[in-house]
Amino acid sequence: MYNFTFHVPTTIHFGKGQISHLDELAQYGKKALLCYGSGSIKRNGIYDEALRILGQAGVEVEELSGVEPNPRIETVRRGVETCKTTGVDMVLAIGGGSTIDCAKVVAAGARYDGDPWDLVIHPEKITAALPIFSVLTLSATGSEMDPFAVISDMTKNEKWGTAAECMKPTMSVLDPTYTFTVSRRQTAAGTADMMSHTFENYFTMEPGAYVQQRMAEGLLRTMIHYGPIALEEPDNYEARANLMWAASHAINGLVNAGAANAWCVHPMEHELSAFYDITHGEGLAILTPAWMEHVLSVKTAPMFATYGRNVWGLQGTDDMSVARDAIAKTREFFFVTMGMPANLRAVGIDDEKNFRVMAEKAAAGSKGSFVPLTADDIVEIYRAAL
Amino acid sequence: MYNFTFHVPTTIHFGKGQISHLDELAQYGKKALLCYGSGSIKRNGIYDEALRILGQAGVEVEELSGVEPNPRIETVRRGVETCKTTGVDMVLAIGGGSTIDCAKVVAAGARYDGDPWDLVIHPEKITAALPIFSVLTLSATGSEMDPFAVISDMTKNEKWGTAAECMKPTMSVLDPTYTFTVSRRQTAAGTADMMSHTFENYFTMEPGAYVQQRMAEGLLRTMIHYGPIALEEPDNYEARANLMWAASHAINGLVNAGAANAWCVHPMEHELSAFYDITHGEGLAILTPAWMEHVLSVKTAPMFATYGRNVWGLQGTDDMSVARDAIAKTREFFFVTMGMPANLRAVGIDDEKNFRVMAEKAAAGSKGSFVPLTADDIVEIYRAAL
Repeated sequence: MYNFTFHVPTTIHFGKGQISHLDELAQYGKKALLCYGSGSIKRNGIYDEALRILGQAGVEVEELSGVEPNPRIETVRRGVETCKTTGVDMVLAIGGGSTIDCAKVVAAGARYDGDPWDLVIHPEKITAALPIFSVLTLSATGSEMDPFAVISDMTKNEKWGTAAECMKPTMSVLDPTYTFTVSRRQTAAGTADMMSHTFENYFTMEPGAYVQQRMAEGLLRTMIHYGPIALEEPDNYEARANLMWAASHAINGLVNAGAANAWCVHPMEHELSAFYDITHGEGLAILTPAWMEHVLSVKTAPMFATYGRNVWGLQGTDDMSVARDAIAKTREFFFVTMGMPANLRAVGIDDEKNFRVMAEKAAAGSKGSFVPLTADDIVEIYRAAL
Repeated sequence: MYNFTFHVPTTIHFGKGQISHLDELAQYGKKALLCYGSGSIKRNGIYDEALRILGQAGVEVEELSGVEPNPRIETVRRGVETCKTTGVDMVLAIGGGSTIDCAKVVAAGARYDGDPWDLVIHPEKITAALPIFSVLTLSATGSEMDPFAVISDMTKNEKWGTAAECMKPTMSVLDPTYTFTVSRRQTAAGTADMMSHTFENYFTMEPGAYVQQRMAEGLLRTMIHYGPIALEEPDNYEARANLMWAASHAINGLVNAGAANAWCVHPMEHELSAFYDITHGEGLAILTPAWMEHVLSVKTAPMFATYGRNVWGLQGTDDMSVARDAIAKTREFFFVTMGMPANLRAVGIDDEKNFRVMAEKAAAGSKGSFVPLTADDIVEIYRAAL
């Protein structure tokens, strides 16, 4: 097990009705910037409920609406400007991971003299942030309990992740009923995203990270068990609750502290989103089995076989055979059980013209991963996924 | 899944050499109360190393030595007195759970006007505490990352647990090499203790706590895998590291938030320790299979069968049969594999004379447990364990 520091300071209020805890924001100041997306929180009543509670607690509200699914740096700049001109004390995101990611960089940008894009490409420049709060409406990214944010500049086809200790939310409300209205397609994409986070941490060359791997298997089993139930019964509380809580733990440090190597599927997918603006979780689902098949070898077969036995309940003593079956199970889960697009053509990417440039950038972002990938490897994976 | 609040603010510095982080104490004040036990930390060099780092960081040290394995209220009172008369700013425990528990109540007592025993029997009176730090030398109780403390008043045969948000440590150093010198007997007792914490949370009547149960199974598999390795190879880093990190997660909220009912084996064991001052982990190991057998029924068999399948890899479709085998495996693990005392006589409890009074007290402490236990039930469990 590698040395590590583990620190998860976020207070989570989990369950039906926990939005009442938004009154705690009054302890942090008088004015909050409320960040949200396309306005679905107005249709489902969460917006009104939040404003009512904040109003009763004496917290004034400024707004940053229209945060995109792959949040843009232009939106971050708009939020920072509002913070600086109106004296905002804290930032409250109501939405999914994109909204929370945007709110995080707004909060850091409000305490930075310069263009917030600096903070995306140079995380070390993030030294302070306004307190960050969230009300989660989509189970996927884990942003509600982690230090990460991913921001895009579509004018440059750039999408990068950044991170800082001070961007970990102070408090997040996780009410599974808020995800009842998430569409079939977004439920599937969210499940693929949380599974990919777990995979990126689970497949490690550090053999001593036993407890992290056993917990990761518990998360994967939960996602595989409840993902299909949530598709069929969108208002099944038990399914939505388990997916929501598993997603948070997939990326908050629990399964990567002491175990982690660099991620590789996420960097490959970020290039797809940066060039084609596709849905992140769909890109991950498309790339994951192709990546697994590419890195399967005599050396990695025991890890994939352990995955097959402990997550999928596969039997058999031949590691390579169990490993192949495990990858086939993963493919079947995403593309049959969860009904997700099975290749890049299905999300509108019809040719190879950007593969080389994307692969060069992704290779730079995945140094030191489970199986180190060159740009040539990544081009092959993109091709296999086409 | 029940509604819950999850909050684990402790910073963990995990791994070899992480004691260097003790210099962070300088951020919290000028003087620390150093709590420790019988002096083994002087023989193995941790004491000198800690004093050197604190000295270089400009932190003065007062001492509270001689903290007992079942820490006494008299020792807590002595520590509180030192805090109040010497102007201590923070408390640093170096040792196992008993030392950390003692340090926690000292830290709370230093901010309380009255006898610290009040804080043991009335947790709600704990409203503030000095900052608490720990360097862990025994994997067992999880006190390094939780709000709990257990303190005894042997003059009254009383041993009670207390808890407060402000007693969660600010920072803990977990260096697995510090547990290389833990004896065979204490290694076994520690493993039983962490397994019992996991069991108390795992066996729940809340059917929707799926992800918590899958993570609990990961912890149990880790403890069962590495407990015997640590017995045979006390300086096996991988074994000590996995046991240490699993123990912290068994009780920090991860596997009980949203799932928990009242505990019952711990209250039964606390009475044994309060009356006979036996080793806590040995008492838990002795009582656990007897408790499992007592509460096994048509209603609980599916839970025990799930435990057998997911933790012990048992096959078979008849729940009652798999449940019985799982309990037998548990019994064999503690008393054969780990070589622990198998019954109360083996730890010097030869007669039933205190069973009734202990059972009455334990029954009061375990209301609302997995299977509610009356005093009559508990007397039967004690008898079965005799």
